[in-house]
Amino acid sequence: MTFNDNANANIKVYGETGQWGLFEISLQGPSSGNPFTEISLGAEFMSADRTVSMAGFYDGGGNYYIRFMPDMQGQWSFRTFSSVKEMDGITGSFLCVEPVPGNRGPVSVKDTFHFSYADGAPYVPVGTTCYAWTHQGRELEEQTLETLKSSPFNKIRMCVFPKSYLYNSNEPEVYPFAGSLEEGWDYFSLNPLFFRHLEERIADLGRLGIEADLILFHPYDRWGYAEMPPEADDLYLRYVISRLSAFHNVWWSLANEYDLMRSKQPEDWERYAAIITAGDPSGHLISNHNCGAFYDYSKPWVTHCSIQRVDVYKTSESTTEWRNRWNKPVVIDECAYEGDVDQGWGNISGEELTRRFWEGAVRGGYVGHGETYLDPEEILWWSKGGRLNGTSPERIGFLRKIVEESPGSRLDPLPSAWDVPCAGVEGQYYLYYFGFNRPRFRNFELEPGVRYTAEVIDTWNMSVEKQPGTFEGAFRINLPGRSYMAVRLIRAD
Amino acid sequence: MTFNDNANANIKVYGETGQWGLFEISLQGPSSGNPFTEISLGAEFMSADRTVSMAGFYDGGGNYYIRFMPDMQGQWSFRTFSSVKEMDGITGSFLCVEPVPGNRGPVSVKDTFHFSYADGAPYVPVGTTCYAWTHQGRELEEQTLETLKSSPFNKIRMCVFPKSYLYNSNEPEVYPFAGSLEEGWDYFSLNPLFFRHLEERIADLGRLGIEADLILFHPYDRWGYAEMPPEADDLYLRYVISRLSAFHNVWWSLANEYDLMRSKQPEDWERYAAIITAGDPSGHLISNHNCGAFYDYSKPWVTHCSIQRVDVYKTSESTTEWRNRWNKPVVIDECAYEGDVDQGWGNISGEELTRRFWEGAVRGGYVGHGETYLDPEEILWWSKGGRLNGTSPERIGFLRKIVEESPGSRLDPLPSAWDVPCAGVEGQYYLYYFGFNRPRFRNFELEPGVRYTAEVIDTWNMSVEKQPGTFEGAFRINLPGRSYMAVRLIRAD
Repeated sequence: MTFNDNANANIKVYGETGQWGLFEISLQGPSSGNPFTEISLGAEFMSADRTVSMAGFYDGGGNYYIRFMPDMQGQWSFRTFSSVKEMDGITGSFLCVEPVPGNRGPVSVKDTFHFSYADGAPYVPVGTTCYAWTHQGRELEEQTLETLKSSPFNKIRMCVFPKSYLYNSNEPEVYPFAGSLEEGWDYFSLNPLFFRHLEERIADLGRLGIEADLILFHPYDRWGYAEMPPEADDLYLRYVISRLSAFHNVWWSLANEYDLMRSKQPEDWERYAAIITAGDPSGHLISNHNCGAFYDYSKPWVTHCSIQRVDVYKTSESTTEWRNRWNKPVVIDECAYEGDVDQGWGNISGEELTRRFWEGAVRGGYVGHGETYLDPEEILWWSKGGRLNGTSPERIGFLRKIVEESPGSRLDPLPSAWDVPCAGVEGQYYLYYFGFNRPRFRNFELEPGVRYTAEVIDTWNMSVEKQPGTFEGAFRINLPGRSYMAVRLIRAD
Repeated sequence: MTFNDNANANIKVYGETGQWGLFEISLQGPSSGNPFTEISLGAEFMSADRTVSMAGFYDGGGNYYIRFMPDMQGQWSFRTFSSVKEMDGITGSFLCVEPVPGNRGPVSVKDTFHFSYADGAPYVPVGTTCYAWTHQGRELEEQTLETLKSSPFNKIRMCVFPKSYLYNSNEPEVYPFAGSLEEGWDYFSLNPLFFRHLEERIADLGRLGIEADLILFHPYDRWGYAEMPPEADDLYLRYVISRLSAFHNVWWSLANEYDLMRSKQPEDWERYAAIITAGDPSGHLISNHNCGAFYDYSKPWVTHCSIQRVDVYKTSESTTEWRNRWNKPVVIDECAYEGDVDQGWGNISGEELTRRFWEGAVRGGYVGHGETYLDPEEILWWSKGGRLNGTSPERIGFLRKIVEESPGSRLDPLPSAWDVPCAGVEGQYYLYYFGFNRPRFRNFELEPGVRYTAEVIDTWNMSVEKQPGTFEGAFRINLPGRSYMAVRLIRAD
């Protein structure tokens, strides 16, 4: 790393310096006035044939940062620009080296319906939901991280703002804006402490290989953050983008249940999307999550569907319809949660949640998890994190393994009988899922002359029973007459 | 009963003579030629202010009958008409007395969405399906009747014609037409033996208080009965109507899976309906049952929807939509069967079938049962009858009791939360059903000042637990956190 001859430039590396790591320029500047609104700052980062622009942000105490995630190894140079003379025109260069192990770069869409890391490795999203886990204080947050570490989840939906809702009455330790509960908030003065904490948690997730599906707005609010003036929304978004878009594991979710945010108009969501996509040169995944009506996922900036089920009974079974309709990856973030609360969205069984995961998977979609068991201390995983008590996570892990073992680590639907969805690769690999049905056997008819090994998979008991011999043409596989069975046929020759 | 002075008239009573019983005029006529096509016969039955016309039928051996179900007590007279001189112009009269105990008359539609017997008593249809039970020989047929006797079912779907399908390869003992397997059938010469047997079974059902939902055509056929010429269809229908419409417990189902009968055109079904409604003065219930596309239940002759679920996952939960769409009773004859065969229509659990019954019931519909457990002798209840082995019938009986205990012995949907359907009478009676959801409690909010008793109903374990005290306004009911629970609130004062 080389420095220019500029006394104010203090360039240090935050976290990793490798490819897809977070490179950070640290600067000193004014602390008077309102640095959030009165000062412009940014830098251009240049490699052999590319120039990338990134805005900087104010971190309090006269500290300014410009962050950048280099997506190519090799030499990069930069030059700052600012309305403040001493932060303007600073130049430097650095070498982007091999990625730190475990950092495969940001996730993006691959082959219309799927995802991969920037290094080309397939990414199979297996998401959970802990909306307000970063607002629970150190002890619980560390427990959540510990739980995640041994869980099957590699994506988490989480809100920037604190949450006010059923089972969410506690105050956060720190707030996103200057001000106080008593005196109100100054939406034009962000609280760096709050965002420093948030980004530490995002970095924690990154080290666990977990994508942070960051919810930028949500309607469960008693502080006013859901109804800020448009200028405050925009300032907040620009601040978040400049601080966080250099984290390789961030996704943008404009809102949870955008359609419940009555103060927002359709054009607001489009403006937010424009601000984010303009300010995030890494092109992180971005979508908007519904309560009732879906967002229009055909908008060009929407990278994937972020779906809450719109029917109480039929959820991930509609994946095919949604794939056909939007021609983008179908991520069903909320299909109801395993639990026993008094609300229909949070009291299905582990069996039913696991079934919904499978129904989505064999149709080429990705279903998300949440857990809402009543707790005397009101620590429900879906919002606060903590411990997992349910029966589905282990089975979801089993499914993840099955998907990762499939060709290309993905499942695409194949034509099948009306009563048994099937995924795989024609002539190579077939995964049939029987759901709640309980056949004692099933007849199959594949092309003659190709031999397959056959496995009977119990998706609930997590067993794979290889059937003796190989199978060809028309054949019968015996099944145990229980729900939640699958059959996998893999070409043998 | 008085007779005219006519040597050929031999009037006897078949079965009951009471109201809604079967009055029968027995005549002797020619046995040469083709009496089925060459001879017309009928009678007019007259009471104080009504005249009802009924066609007669040939029963072989020169025996002719004209049947009539009197729907009013008192004096009736009749006069025959025929193309055969000695059967023409015979007059007589008879007294229609009180109905035989257990005969409440035919069922008809009551209050748009429900049913009642002709005597005014509510009829809550709780149907099962044994398509081909009357073609199985005496021993099995009697076992079926014995099973039905101790079952909760008061309606059975059954085919006139024998059935050829999976698990249905045996030949019937007797065929509906003259001819043989080897030499083919004469569709213009019906086999009285066949129909005599059928009507005995219908009478057996009547004695058990069971409605015979008689399927007139079906596509599961290897004999040709599904593809007869139109003239044969019409002759067959006129024969069936003249023989059977005087049975109080008959319903007409034009077809099972009418849309799989490729040789029939839309206008055929309308012609069949016209023949039946013209020939059946009792106005028995009549509908047409789908496989894929629903029949157009808005046709004026259709008395009720006779539905097969059109979605693998969402079945009786669509009852509300269907009620609103057709404004007629919603009878879901097939929502899938309890069993373990290799077909998706026949391998759901007893839990799931019972759940579908409840989901339909609390939306003001009527779901039907079927059972398809694999059997080494291929005796599956859904087709051949025999014994019931499943877990759902007992629970269906429990539901029947709950419905019959409800005001008016019926359930109508009430406005409710999105996640808990509710049926009952506003301000009087509320039945909430939680389905697969498993809340540990539920908050209710009813109008203040009215007190209710509350019961927690376990629809699977068939228990009703009265909660201590009474409840008013906003209150909480604790629940066990299991699936398949209901809460019943009954006005206490």
